[in-house]
Amino acid sequence: QVPAAATISTLGQYDGQSVTLHGWLYNSRESGKLIFPIFRDGTGTVQGVAHVKSVSPEVFDTLKNLTQESSVIVTGKVRADKRAPGGYELDIENVQVIQRVPESDPYPITPKEHGVDFLMERRHLWIRSPRQSAILRIRAEIMRAAAEYFDSNGFVRTDPPILTPAACEGTSTLFPVDYFGDPAFLTQSGQLYIESTALALGKVYSFGPTFRAEKSKTRRHLTEFWMVEPEVAFMDLDGLMTLAENYISHIVQSVLKNRRSELEVIGRDIARLEAITPPFPRLRYDEAAKMLQQAHADGHLENPFEYGNDFGSPDETWLTQQFEKPVMVHRYPAAVKAFYMEPDPQDPTYALCVDVLAPEGYGEVIGGSQRVASYELLKSRIESHDLPLESFQWYLDLRRYGSVPHSGFGMGIERVVAWICGLDHVRETIPFARTLHRIYP
Amino acid sequence: QVPAAATISTLGQYDGQSVTLHGWLYNSRESGKLIFPIFRDGTGTVQGVAHVKSVSPEVFDTLKNLTQESSVIVTGKVRADKRAPGGYELDIENVQVIQRVPESDPYPITPKEHGVDFLMERRHLWIRSPRQSAILRIRAEIMRAAAEYFDSNGFVRTDPPILTPAACEGTSTLFPVDYFGDPAFLTQSGQLYIESTALALGKVYSFGPTFRAEKSKTRRHLTEFWMVEPEVAFMDLDGLMTLAENYISHIVQSVLKNRRSELEVIGRDIARLEAITPPFPRLRYDEAAKMLQQAHADGHLENPFEYGNDFGSPDETWLTQQFEKPVMVHRYPAAVKAFYMEPDPQDPTYALCVDVLAPEGYGEVIGGSQRVASYELLKSRIESHDLPLESFQWYLDLRRYGSVPHSGFGMGIERVVAWICGLDHVRETIPFARTLHRIYP
Ligand SMILES: [Mg+2]
Ligand SMILES: [Mg+2]
Repeated sequence: QVPAAATISTLGQYDGQSVTLHGWLYNSRESGKLIFPIFRDGTGTVQGVAHVKSVSPEVFDTLKNLTQESSVIVTGKVRADKRAPGGYELDIENVQVIQRVPESDPYPITPKEHGVDFLMERRHLWIRSPRQSAILRIRAEIMRAAAEYFDSNGFVRTDPPILTPAACEGTSTLFPVDYFGDPAFLTQSGQLYIESTALALGKVYSFGPTFRAEKSKTRRHLTEFWMVEPEVAFMDLDGLMTLAENYISHIVQSVLKNRRSELEVIGRDIARLEAITPPFPRLRYDEAAKMLQQAHADGHLENPFEYGNDFGSPDETWLTQQFEKPVMVHRYPAAVKAFYMEPDPQDPTYALCVDVLAPEGYGEVIGGSQRVASYELLKSRIESHDLPLESFQWYLDLRRYGSVPHSGFGMGIERVVAWICGLDHVRETIPFARTLHRIYP
Repeated sequence: QVPAAATISTLGQYDGQSVTLHGWLYNSRESGKLIFPIFRDGTGTVQGVAHVKSVSPEVFDTLKNLTQESSVIVTGKVRADKRAPGGYELDIENVQVIQRVPESDPYPITPKEHGVDFLMERRHLWIRSPRQSAILRIRAEIMRAAAEYFDSNGFVRTDPPILTPAACEGTSTLFPVDYFGDPAFLTQSGQLYIESTALALGKVYSFGPTFRAEKSKTRRHLTEFWMVEPEVAFMDLDGLMTLAENYISHIVQSVLKNRRSELEVIGRDIARLEAITPPFPRLRYDEAAKMLQQAHADGHLENPFEYGNDFGSPDETWLTQQFEKPVMVHRYPAAVKAFYMEPDPQDPTYALCVDVLAPEGYGEVIGGSQRVASYELLKSRIESHDLPLESFQWYLDLRRYGSVPHSGFGMGIERVVAWICGLDHVRETIPFARTLHRIYP
């Protein structure tokens, strides 16, 4: 029987007491008659101290010969020490080795620098490092807070299918699956499905993996990524923007509250996150376009921005650097946006849509819109976009039977993790990243 | 701009006041100078009352001619009425029609009985019915509570990949995917991956869709279903059984607390759910086998139970009917169980595993085990099960570098929804069921 154990993250509750920890040796150093092993247990790391005279010769010898990532049960007295990373050290009393990693086959990831390919090939081990495990703990908090906001605001979670018969936006980036002889695809977005659950349940959201057979290799793209998508009946674009700014702020503030020590482990600039509170600046696409054209004229941007296009990466970076908070760019030209977006009644050449761009150049984290409510308009859009009308009959039903104004957005979890953690590449935002050239382990 | 609205589920807060509801006409009847339209808004249904003299002739006429599922904005005064289903009625003051469903193309699902195929073909509309939407709201609460338990008990959510290069348990029921020219499969379980995150983070869980290309058509099988899987470093089988009984009890009690009116809508026997509290009965496989053999001798079971086999469906049904609570059957013969299960040190012909069988014949909702900790034993198991050793090298690494006793289980969400809702068939447990013959809508 495995005895009950304390965790490193809660050592503060045991100051002056003896505790038992279950964990692994992360690193160790010796200084004369002292050994300073650093243990990890998944909740953090703590430095132990053992003097040759404070423990039995067997325990001292065991510690002296302990190898990296060997698994142990350690007993020791908790001692507050302001210089220690977590504020506490452990005066070691006893250690029991569960499995000793042999010198003949040592743990492959040493504290020295390794290349990214070497580490990704050993992702199942790399996640044990303090930095990677801190990122995964922050990711989990982002996902928890992402669901919590909707669960506590009257939204019903409804799961759209992963295996779908039709494509939402073109088929070139879809993964096909043979479904007992019928063609099927892995979902790129649950939007069409949750439009139907929104008309059944009012306020809904989905939260699951989505897929894109993206042939490009960039630091922002994964082939498998997690999306959270709310959809609300009787909500217009203004309501959607208010929802988006409250939503993102809730997530960031939850991470600051519950994962502050992990943000410190990875060295994130916390003040930048503390600024993320509602409201966010709202810019019409036309205003953003003017700012970009002016920035080019002033020599801040190399290439001129061409009105009517989507923003390029340097445009987005410059634009978001003008604000401390995420910026919400709304009402893009309808011609560059998806077929299901409601036209602006003030000027139908604009779409009632919004992209939320994260600060510090992290780019789009949310894309959303009010949806076309009219049966006739939606049908003509499907036709003019050369989409197969037959596949969209059930989607058109939502406009045949009790159509209402409704809006929703999609938020990519990995983009948000990259931004909140300040990461250069999305491959570190998820336990096992899937990219063009990687599906192992 | 859409005005702010009350919801039907919160009408009790507005007794005697005028409110605005956003919703749809569910049904209507007339009685002389009175019209009684029933509205739904996704949170519930409420009956309205309009007398020819209490509203304008236009409003009366609009209500008289309103068709099923037409979308409306209704204003009325809330009036407590003990005979009303939700306890309140609405004295209608005004109604604004958003989209009127025309008589020429009426809503296809009328209050009369329809066949299951007809309804599944219109699942995007069928979910609007009071019974189906109540089930989906209960499902959402089950999922919320399922995550909440782990989030508030120190577990870190880690998402295993959906696209995997290898199979956990055989390849005959896997969906293959062409991954840019490499073979890949849709995951059947995240277990192997979260064993690696458990050794990194201590206590973890995953929560996502899993896939099984099941060619059999039964009322318990979907090809796409949601699994929640915890995995805990330094946990043994006893600890796992305690976790399982606390976990299931938390979920059932949360549904009773937060979705009681939905349980009433679907007519669930609530007393049976109130009995679900820890501890659950624990039976060795051998004891269960004896009970089944005795039941056959006593004439309660048609066929004799053959020791060493898995339980058949009639066996499971009879067995669970002997208990008010889920029953935890542990220590099956190792020969019929998976390669990764730790043998019982008391007698290695038994596996340290547990299946949790739901009451009322709902069958297995949880399957779990302590995992093999020894590198040598795991390697020989992989070889004797004819699994490709090369694919499992990373999994073996978890025993090379800091192996510890660890345990985990998998719980199928749809099985739990079927049991808690008392459903005959899993197709109603998920918004868009995927079965052998259905991938639409
Ligand atoms: Mg976009
Ligand atoms: Mg099983």
